[in-house]
Amino acid sequence: MTRVYNFSAGPAALPEPVLRQAAEEMLDWHGVGCGVMEMSHRGKEFTAIVEQAEADFRELLAIPAGYKVLFLQGGATQQFAQIPMNLLAGGSADYLVTGSWSKKAYKEAQHIAAAIGGSVRLAGSTESEAFTRLLRADEISLDPNAAYVHLCTNETIHGVELRDADDLPATSAPIVADMSSHILSRPVDVSRYGMIYAGAQKNIGPSGLVMVVIRDDLLGRAAAVTPSVMDYRVMADNGSMLNTPPTYAIYIAGLVFRWLKAQGGLAAIEARAVEKAKLLYDLLDTNPFYENRVAPASRSRMNVPFLLRDESLNEAFLAGAREAGLTQLKGHKSVGGMRASIYNAMPLAGVAALVDYMRDFAARHG
Amino acid sequence: MTRVYNFSAGPAALPEPVLRQAAEEMLDWHGVGCGVMEMSHRGKEFTAIVEQAEADFRELLAIPAGYKVLFLQGGATQQFAQIPMNLLAGGSADYLVTGSWSKKAYKEAQHIAAAIGGSVRLAGSTESEAFTRLLRADEISLDPNAAYVHLCTNETIHGVELRDADDLPATSAPIVADMSSHILSRPVDVSRYGMIYAGAQKNIGPSGLVMVVIRDDLLGRAAAVTPSVMDYRVMADNGSMLNTPPTYAIYIAGLVFRWLKAQGGLAAIEARAVEKAKLLYDLLDTNPFYENRVAPASRSRMNVPFLLRDESLNEAFLAGAREAGLTQLKGHKSVGGMRASIYNAMPLAGVAALVDYMRDFAARHG
Repeated sequence: MTRVYNFSAGPAALPEPVLRQAAEEMLDWHGVGCGVMEMSHRGKEFTAIVEQAEADFRELLAIPAGYKVLFLQGGATQQFAQIPMNLLAGGSADYLVTGSWSKKAYKEAQHIAAAIGGSVRLAGSTESEAFTRLLRADEISLDPNAAYVHLCTNETIHGVELRDADDLPATSAPIVADMSSHILSRPVDVSRYGMIYAGAQKNIGPSGLVMVVIRDDLLGRAAAVTPSVMDYRVMADNGSMLNTPPTYAIYIAGLVFRWLKAQGGLAAIEARAVEKAKLLYDLLDTNPFYENRVAPASRSRMNVPFLLRDESLNEAFLAGAREAGLTQLKGHKSVGGMRASIYNAMPLAGVAALVDYMRDFAARHG
Repeated sequence: MTRVYNFSAGPAALPEPVLRQAAEEMLDWHGVGCGVMEMSHRGKEFTAIVEQAEADFRELLAIPAGYKVLFLQGGATQQFAQIPMNLLAGGSADYLVTGSWSKKAYKEAQHIAAAIGGSVRLAGSTESEAFTRLLRADEISLDPNAAYVHLCTNETIHGVELRDADDLPATSAPIVADMSSHILSRPVDVSRYGMIYAGAQKNIGPSGLVMVVIRDDLLGRAAAVTPSVMDYRVMADNGSMLNTPPTYAIYIAGLVFRWLKAQGGLAAIEARAVEKAKLLYDLLDTNPFYENRVAPASRSRMNVPFLLRDESLNEAFLAGAREAGLTQLKGHKSVGGMRASIYNAMPLAGVAALVDYMRDFAARHG
């Protein structure tokens, strides 16, 4: 078996020790005689697994008291509908659009608001500049009475990342943040958010699980039409188990949380992310064969889109990369070119191998 | 490692060969250098996996042309809301209530109908008889103009099972059936249904996946408020991939489908189910130490609730069973007593071991 360096944007590479442990425990978890996939979600074994996962997740993100952690289904895309259903309450919500994902969230919220009442405002967009930078403060017009302000803190396709220390809009409205593609890659000041959500399939675990962190005062506002399993208050009251949760995905997420703690927690993880991203961006900025169009202060540490200046070499670049054990580098079809997603599970050696390959490919074809 | 016989109602025991293969392929699927959990859902490898899974599922159930197969999230409980959102269309739906699950579906449909318009009728219920039998034809009052008739063909908690050959109501309205806990345990005449759905975590695979089989003419009726990921037509148009599907759960389901085919398909599986159920019911009907209260013609082959006539022995029964490697036999809290779920993955030897244990326990304590 030879493992490749897998740069998929998601579902994405997972830490090898996590996969090894999962394989070992597949038929028999801790001597109980069955695997995690086969356990009742209400039994004491799985209860211990989910409680430990929540405790580790809370510790990693330093989630303060007064926030619920929910393990839900349907991915971030279902949240795009679930958020207005739960939080709009007949009012108005502000949406900041800085890439494909925040735009999708905005459009789905419009669709839901049109049906349940309430309104959704575009409070700022960088679409006219092809989503190559964050919004400047003077481009954002916020409604002081907004039910919430929605944003995506890391745009997986466009490679634009917000830092909560500097880039969050000044507002007293609850900030609702889609952190799907950079959650757990850096410390976050959770107290600045009303709600954080993240699909698992980048930095957490398998697809089919979405994590929601929500401030207690935002529970209990759901529109009448909200399905029971989509009402945050109902799910909080039932410990995410009104119905059967995605148990195996939660188990893998729990193993990833433990692995992150063993790496030294989010401060250590962030230092590694900075190092990995710098290695790749330095090449992109110094080798004229390649180009990244995102404004430097807006660049994502997790998703690095780039172009070959001679796009006729794209297929040769991808084929050579595959031969070198570097996979899933093709860019999203909406933007073309290449994309390297370098989430927590990607070792520095993987990024170094990519940079070596890119330098070599440029030398051979430049 | 010693595997137990796991009688959990769900998530439930999976076939050992499936788990072994999953463990072997965890870090490297078919030599591609990464596991299934780490693959892009849009790559050619996962596309092959999901297409094979759908083809095998269609073959097993002999699904005719004119039906879509969807791989969705949220479990059957989310379907309880999604069905009226998609199919009510301002009309009226009939619900048959034969146990806890169909009652939950009815209540959730009432909740949704009250918000989106339309109505939901109770077309028959056996609740006054503690859900111990199916409805008789003369107890069912159907609306000939119903948008659909909803029923649950196997009640996991109460152990009541409908056969589509005999027990489906006579109606020209589309029948919508929750088959979560007995799908793939017997051949089904799919053409008699407008829609079939099933949470995966009993006879299919991990929790977090729900299979939907829906007739083409029922697509495109969704209420305006329906979230995009919950609109059957949108998901059908996008091959269940408007967003990232639960890829690993689909992969495991696909392995289970192949295992079922290797067992000889659903006719062979049904013969085994008949044999296993007979072994257990014969004991329950002949040993006065135990009791099953479900009318014989209504009894489930998958979920067998039973009582010890002397309930003060319940804890001793469960403790002795655990020692004998027979787990998860405690009944659902709403009905008490015991329950043995004997899905496809439970070998005859497991049921035989349970029957031996029960006979021995009765002899020792009778």
